[in-house]
Amino acid sequence: MKSLLLVAHGSRRAASNDEVRDLTEQLRQQAQGRYAQVNCAFLELAEPSIPDGIEACIQAGAQEITVLPYFLSAGRHVAEDIPQEVAIKQQEYPQLKIEIAPYLGSTTQMSELLLAHVAE
Amino acid sequence: MKSLLLVAHGSRRAASNDEVRDLTEQLRQQAQGRYAQVNCAFLELAEPSIPDGIEACIQAGAQEITVLPYFLSAGRHVAEDIPQEVAIKQQEYPQLKIEIAPYLGSTTQMSELLLAHVAE
Repeated sequence: MKSLLLVAHGSRRAASNDEVRDLTEQLRQQAQGRYAQVNCAFLELAEPSIPDGIEACIQAGAQEITVLPYFLSAGRHVAEDIPQEVAIKQQEYPQLKIEIAPYLGSTTQMSELLLAHVAE
Repeated sequence: MKSLLLVAHGSRRAASNDEVRDLTEQLRQQAQGRYAQVNCAFLELAEPSIPDGIEACIQAGAQEITVLPYFLSAGRHVAEDIPQEVAIKQQEYPQLKIEIAPYLGSTTQMSELLLAHVAE
């Protein structure tokens, strides 16, 4: 079973965290067939944490997890903090396949999305 | 003449600011016909500032400027700081049409982009 875990920074503003949860729900609806499960987790300031988010995927039956960093730039959070949090669970579950996808801002389709967005 | 001004947060990491400049160059190439000019500006930690970015558009002949916040959530930066910076130039040039587009994270197409991105 494959799971997708959207990882956001987390905010003191509950509304920002709820935006991530709403986006996760949209992903869940659109990912049918590709991911049996779509969850979100937060690096800080909101729950669940990345290890707790991975644990929830495992408890639901995940054998493969794709961690998708919902970040626009490759700062320390993307380069170091997220891999460190993921490594905690990888050590605990050596058989589990966990892959960290490139962060959102690195997508080749960003400029097209931005132009479509301003045209809306 | 219409200009598009991509506004990012700005980072201490030069590479992150360069990513925004590279994205601006892609937008420039793809926006032909829709925007005569595409520039970027930064809220803090990098140059040009938002007022300086708007001024550059004006000096190049812009009569209409769309400010596009390259932010994933609607925190204080999007809700207050960017509008305040834009207002400085609007007061200086009352005839200029400046519109602030909804921030990137509010786009309805984000979930599709994320699924296309992880499939790459």
